[in-house]
Amino acid sequence: MKDSAVLLIDCPDQKGLVARVSTLLYEHGANILHSDLHTDHQLGLFFMRLEWDLATDSNQTAAAFNLPAFDAAFRALASELHMNWQLRTSRARPRVALFCSQYLHCVSDLLERRRTGELLCDIPLLISNHRAVEPMAAFYGIPFVYTPTATANPTHESARQTDRATVEELQLDLLRQHNIDLVVLARYMQILTPAFVAAYPSAIINVHHSFLPAFIGARPYHAAHARGVKLIGATSHYVTEVLDDGPIIEQDVARISHRDQVDDLIARGRDLERVVLSRAVRWHLDHRILRYDNKTVVFD
Amino acid sequence: MKDSAVLLIDCPDQKGLVARVSTLLYEHGANILHSDLHTDHQLGLFFMRLEWDLATDSNQTAAAFNLPAFDAAFRALASELHMNWQLRTSRARPRVALFCSQYLHCVSDLLERRRTGELLCDIPLLISNHRAVEPMAAFYGIPFVYTPTATANPTHESARQTDRATVEELQLDLLRQHNIDLVVLARYMQILTPAFVAAYPSAIINVHHSFLPAFIGARPYHAAHARGVKLIGATSHYVTEVLDDGPIIEQDVARISHRDQVDDLIARGRDLERVVLSRAVRWHLDHRILRYDNKTVVFD
Amino acid sequence: MKDSAVLLIDCPDQKGLVARVSTLLYEHGANILHSDLHTDHQLGLFFMRLEWDLATDSNQTAAAFNLPAFDAAFRALASELHMNWQLRTSRARPRVALFCSQYLHCVSDLLERRRTGELLCDIPLLISNHRAVEPMAAFYGIPFVYTPTATANPTHESARQTDRATVEELQLDLLRQHNIDLVVLARYMQILTPAFVAAYPSAIINVHHSFLPAFIGARPYHAAHARGVKLIGATSHYVTEVLDDGPIIEQDVARISHRDQVDDLIARGRDLERVVLSRAVRWHLDHRILRYDNKTVVFD
Amino acid sequence: MKDSAVLLIDCPDQKGLVARVSTLLYEHGANILHSDLHTDHQLGLFFMRLEWDLATDSNQTAAAFNLPAFDAAFRALASELHMNWQLRTSRARPRVALFCSQYLHCVSDLLERRRTGELLCDIPLLISNHRAVEPMAAFYGIPFVYTPTATANPTHESARQTDRATVEELQLDLLRQHNIDLVVLARYMQILTPAFVAAYPSAIINVHHSFLPAFIGARPYHAAHARGVKLIGATSHYVTEVLDDGPIIEQDVARISHRDQVDDLIARGRDLERVVLSRAVRWHLDHRILRYDNKTVVFD
Repeated sequence: MKDSAVLLIDCPDQKGLVARVSTLLYEHGANILHSDLHTDHQLGLFFMRLEWDLATDSNQTAAAFNLPAFDAAFRALASELHMNWQLRTSRARPRVALFCSQYLHCVSDLLERRRTGELLCDIPLLISNHRAVEPMAAFYGIPFVYTPTATANPTHESARQTDRATVEELQLDLLRQHNIDLVVLARYMQILTPAFVAAYPSAIINVHHSFLPAFIGARPYHAAHARGVKLIGATSHYVTEVLDDGPIIEQDVARISHRDQVDDLIARGRDLERVVLSRAVRWHLDHRILRYDNKTVVFD
Repeated sequence: MKDSAVLLIDCPDQKGLVARVSTLLYEHGANILHSDLHTDHQLGLFFMRLEWDLATDSNQTAAAFNLPAFDAAFRALASELHMNWQLRTSRARPRVALFCSQYLHCVSDLLERRRTGELLCDIPLLISNHRAVEPMAAFYGIPFVYTPTATANPTHESARQTDRATVEELQLDLLRQHNIDLVVLARYMQILTPAFVAAYPSAIINVHHSFLPAFIGARPYHAAHARGVKLIGATSHYVTEVLDDGPIIEQDVARISHRDQVDDLIARGRDLERVVLSRAVRWHLDHRILRYDNKTVVFD
Repeated sequence: MKDSAVLLIDCPDQKGLVARVSTLLYEHGANILHSDLHTDHQLGLFFMRLEWDLATDSNQTAAAFNLPAFDAAFRALASELHMNWQLRTSRARPRVALFCSQYLHCVSDLLERRRTGELLCDIPLLISNHRAVEPMAAFYGIPFVYTPTATANPTHESARQTDRATVEELQLDLLRQHNIDLVVLARYMQILTPAFVAAYPSAIINVHHSFLPAFIGARPYHAAHARGVKLIGATSHYVTEVLDDGPIIEQDVARISHRDQVDDLIARGRDLERVVLSRAVRWHLDHRILRYDNKTVVFD
Repeated sequence: MKDSAVLLIDCPDQKGLVARVSTLLYEHGANILHSDLHTDHQLGLFFMRLEWDLATDSNQTAAAFNLPAFDAAFRALASELHMNWQLRTSRARPRVALFCSQYLHCVSDLLERRRTGELLCDIPLLISNHRAVEPMAAFYGIPFVYTPTATANPTHESARQTDRATVEELQLDLLRQHNIDLVVLARYMQILTPAFVAAYPSAIINVHHSFLPAFIGARPYHAAHARGVKLIGATSHYVTEVLDDGPIIEQDVARISHRDQVDDLIARGRDLERVVLSRAVRWHLDHRILRYDNKTVVFD
């Protein structure tokens, strides 16, 4: 079982950043496992990910890493160098809420990957506007909450908005009650309001079933078929206020041909959606993603 | 050396098409090498590609295939069944004109593939609005014509249009003089007028350096970098009046990361451009492409 | 719901095959949906797949296709032309038995694909030498049979062989009782005896976790890591007497780097295994695969 | 024009390596452009690549980086920490010799990539046992030396060995005269002797036209076709004494089908060979590759 700490840093680029951070870790006796950095020379920004061992390993007689002491020392350095930073340990399992609608292939895939230990997180909440997922939630032992869209056919736009606001209020309450760190939209077919998105900045991951920025919006497989593309794609991204415009985390494509009808695209696409969403979730849980300038740095 | 005939058919779908065409070929003694068909059930359209041997092969005492006799018989059938069709032989080498500007990686690639026998065609004409390609044309023995954009900085839009019209007139004259069957825009950075495009319907192939329909227009690698995509692409397509909107023939992608700057994307993209353009040209030369509904059927 | 018939043919190549078969279908009024053929000119062999509609479609007043009449007529033709052939309808759902051991990602994936309608088959039997899969079998409603390897540590090779023979006898009994058409080894970690393989020719599909023929045998991810490859792969194939040597149905690869340890390869590989195995099963169920010369023709 | 220094380090893993190296660079005022590291925890080895600016950049009034001063200081540190290391600058262009036989697609590709500035090196020597490449060498301005295998059909194995030894002696003389840093075997169809290989350790790059370790040795496309694989591959690697067994640098694959004959595999494979060889050469020239345990670390 891994017992490690991860430090994620972004700040204005300046000389000596690596030297000062690595020297501080060295002074605290850290056994560095992984180190990755990236500099955006155009914007003058610096990004770093460091992971080190927290336990005494078998070859060493030294005591475990003193995280509180390092934390205190690092805060002073971070303040001096104007760093944004996060310090996480593998001991603290992120708490994830899954949202889905009637298509369950992504939810099923995420739950199965968690079962096999590929995704290290707790999933105390599964929310859907359909009941279809209920037996699956029961099988995997995930508490399920049904949040239907109350007015199926509201006569007025205002009624629809009221309805959505009510549902989102309930959902946000649930997220808070369960101390959710990350919301995963596993083919959840409702568009979130800006207020909802603002409550979980850089903490809502969605999968869109196209190679963004191609085919934004509804029914991308139909649009791809109409355009006659030779590859279809899927994209996982952080959700922002603008639909399908958030920072892209991962994308993948599959080859199709003139033989493939819309239904074939949908079937082929399911494999892509599973893969790009699960990778995004895993990287987020492993604290491998930094976000800036509506893009992502993924330290894989 | 292959000595074969190819029949390309598209027509309204109806029962017995395969039976009647294949029976006619059988009656004329054809030794079928390849047969491919596609039906668009939604639009009720039928597409077929048949390739058969024209020579007497070593195992047979029979005479060579009587193409004129088959041609005459097939015309009657095609008329009855309302077929669009083309009958081509590998003896008639297509005549190709290459257009390029200052970036030569695609031209170089096509000329090299022709040298190795991968592209079976004559290339009697290479046109460019830059002189950079001249030594390469000389090395490969391809007649080169320099068609500069005369007025570099015209003060009026009307002057620019006049200029373009004059250049295109010259180019069209050259194409006619050389009996060109196919125009390949190998990173030619000028936009063709509708009149030019209309002169070579389904016979102008372009490569666009993005995964269409994403990043239409100028500087797609810059746009891809700005959007933060995780894959870049390239697309070969037939040119139509609408920019970057013609029927897609081939697409491919390559993985990039946050480390890649615009220059890296451009370098990676060159490999994609070469591959998707050369495949499109090869398939066109082998009579493997049918075009309909702003899409392509590629019988590979 | 699709209601179609599929005819798979292989025979010595000869002139007129397409004409005679398609004419027969035409005479019986078939509405052909798909037609694919392949000729191995070196070996002089011909392969064909035809799929046609069995129902009266909405545009037609004609009655449904008379399959028994066609069947009788075709038998005569097939005999005359020395054809091997299979005639299947989508009405007859293939009956599949799944075998697995302790790793469940492939079984889970297949069951989930069946649930979503991607795999059209009945699965009346799930066999494992571990009990781990039992709750999953229950959730998906698949009858489960536990066939443990009785003697865990037999002192003699002969004891191990006796044990395996007993287990396989039980398994073969179960397969016969359930009228199984296809056996899928979804990461089943026992090697089948030649006698077992002989009982289901071209009807046992296995997934091997390497890019065959590289890394045959046990622990291929360890071997791949030791060799320092830059891509890992997975292969689905029909099982023959020789280990990992049967006709390959599908392969796929994923990029790895020096950062990836054996555990990372195993995790990445699970995605590949799922994809190549599920494609092989789907193609087999759709009667798209012909086997010859220890290879496969896959009409996709 | 890039003006930078690259430091490549490998040594036993120990605490404080990053801190001490980065602090030394900081003290000398280095502006770090890229930093990458890798630890093989199993073998207890540490690998690092650092690249920093040598010029005064536009925002700085400071003088250029004092490389000799850093060099001297680093030598002391490296000795203390038992490091293997290389310090290179982009000012010193590596000198490359190309070897080829009758197939020219890889040579053509490398020369074209050098022309476009993708490969930063001097190529003062092109050696071949065929004259086919001579006009291409002339076009690109590369001095060409023809080193035929003198005795085409020697009656004795000993004669063949004498012949090879003579040819290799001549070739090694040429390499020394031209101060060659890297030998690239661009589809050179002769097997080098251990003596030749020993003269250029980790400095001979070869491309093998299969996905190693599958299909080692001669005619891999024929072997791939015979086995019925669904993907073909190509591999670039450092040459060692054992044929096709050296550390793999890069691999790639392409999908094929039952339709593809050996000739199609050869044509498809040419694209793969070009890509994997050119990437390996570029990474080597950019000092991105470290070799250990018959593997490579590629810091891309």
